[in-house]
Amino acid sequence: MTTLDLSRMSLNQATTQNWPMAETIDGCARAGVGWIGVWRHKAAEIGLAETARRIRSAGLRASSLCRGGFFPAATAEERRQRIDDNRRAIDEACELGAPVVVMVAGPGPDRDLDGARQMVFDGISALVPYAAERGVRLAIEPLHPMFAGDRSVVVTLAQANALAARIASPAVGVAVDVYHVWWDPQVYAEIARASGSILGFHVSDWIVPPPDHVLGRGMMGDGVIELRRLREAVDAAGYDGPIEVEIFNQAVWDTPGEQVLALAKERFLSEC
Amino acid sequence: MTTLDLSRMSLNQATTQNWPMAETIDGCARAGVGWIGVWRHKAAEIGLAETARRIRSAGLRASSLCRGGFFPAATAEERRQRIDDNRRAIDEACELGAPVVVMVAGPGPDRDLDGARQMVFDGISALVPYAAERGVRLAIEPLHPMFAGDRSVVVTLAQANALAARIASPAVGVAVDVYHVWWDPQVYAEIARASGSILGFHVSDWIVPPPDHVLGRGMMGDGVIELRRLREAVDAAGYDGPIEVEIFNQAVWDTPGEQVLALAKERFLSEC
Repeated sequence: MTTLDLSRMSLNQATTQNWPMAETIDGCARAGVGWIGVWRHKAAEIGLAETARRIRSAGLRASSLCRGGFFPAATAEERRQRIDDNRRAIDEACELGAPVVVMVAGPGPDRDLDGARQMVFDGISALVPYAAERGVRLAIEPLHPMFAGDRSVVVTLAQANALAARIASPAVGVAVDVYHVWWDPQVYAEIARASGSILGFHVSDWIVPPPDHVLGRGMMGDGVIELRRLREAVDAAGYDGPIEVEIFNQAVWDTPGEQVLALAKERFLSEC
Repeated sequence: MTTLDLSRMSLNQATTQNWPMAETIDGCARAGVGWIGVWRHKAAEIGLAETARRIRSAGLRASSLCRGGFFPAATAEERRQRIDDNRRAIDEACELGAPVVVMVAGPGPDRDLDGARQMVFDGISALVPYAAERGVRLAIEPLHPMFAGDRSVVVTLAQANALAARIASPAVGVAVDVYHVWWDPQVYAEIARASGSILGFHVSDWIVPPPDHVLGRGMMGDGVIELRRLREAVDAAGYDGPIEVEIFNQAVWDTPGEQVLALAKERFLSEC
């Protein structure tokens, strides 16, 4: 069994939504957590340059920038605007030194799922040259199928893998988030298939029953996900990068950042 | 395009939870809805024999009995009890003249998904001789992956098809419920693969965003599911049996049964 140490732990800011950007950086540094998964709206609190400066001077690194994507839209003009916004996200990742932008596909503008999925392929394809020039990689993150109507028409790792294979660029890979994929009978086969193109791994837990559609994730160990098995599968597929703790949960958001981070460190080691 | 008429419509009683059994039968007869998807706890209201008698005398037929399943459990004794209860469900289906018992797999007793899935295979396999002798078929219904933790470790049609293929009995097939499978990139391929073993087809809709984890289904046409495309795919796979309207939704439950049935008839024809 591979052992895990804290050097791979990253705090994704979705876990500590109410912790201001600057305090989050200081808090991670104090806690010995060397990575931070940055959200665009959090970096905007103090500005991108200041965020980048503080991350560097605290000795931290950005594991990813969240998030790009949201490609499907009703008109060509809207789809063009979404692609422009994704180019800005790539620029921001550059400035932060984040190697990866996490791509959430977005929902369809109507009932045509195939059409929306094609728009995702077109959108990511359009970004590839821009990302490759800047040395930023795009991680397609399949979301849980319960988000197919409101957040992402990409809902399985098989689908994300197929999309990445079709785009066939070293700048494009996948992000594996346990919350989104744990239920999938194909998940271990698809993690193995993703070998070499896993660009991120996110942990949280699935609480039974889920307390909320969006803010229902649990702290690692509080739910039913086979966390260690999934982490070892991702390791076995060759991924040795940072592992982001990403917990969307109102009760976690209402807890002081330092406390959340202390518990996350403990559970990261005992459960993942 | 295949046209649909009301002769295929069935009212699954999950749609009208607060409508008493006897009134539901009379209401369906008055509305010209010839099929009813019976739930065990509803039949228990007036007793099985009386339910069967009233269904026959109203000129209706039971399209299915809901539900069997819930096989995984922590101990062998509990698993045996679950199988016994499923045998009783098969007996009840016989008495009602329902050709099919809908099988919901159940959640696992712990984090071991593979283990729980094996218990589902073992449980259904144990029932096959009993069901076959009585001429009742078992429809494995994959539930939406958001129910993997609390209701069903069988979460995709691919998985249900594989399970049915592994059991390899004419007494075992699958039920396709649009709410559970609409998001799946493989759904059309898997519907085609299920040709000859589709034992039921259920309609409702996926509201954006979902109002509730369990009671969040919408009336056909109120959500984003490509209903007609799915219905035509199921037709093309050779299924020509009853189509159950099955809507778990508190607001629908709070509406008088006659009104729900009237709207369901309208939407069945305009949307499915």
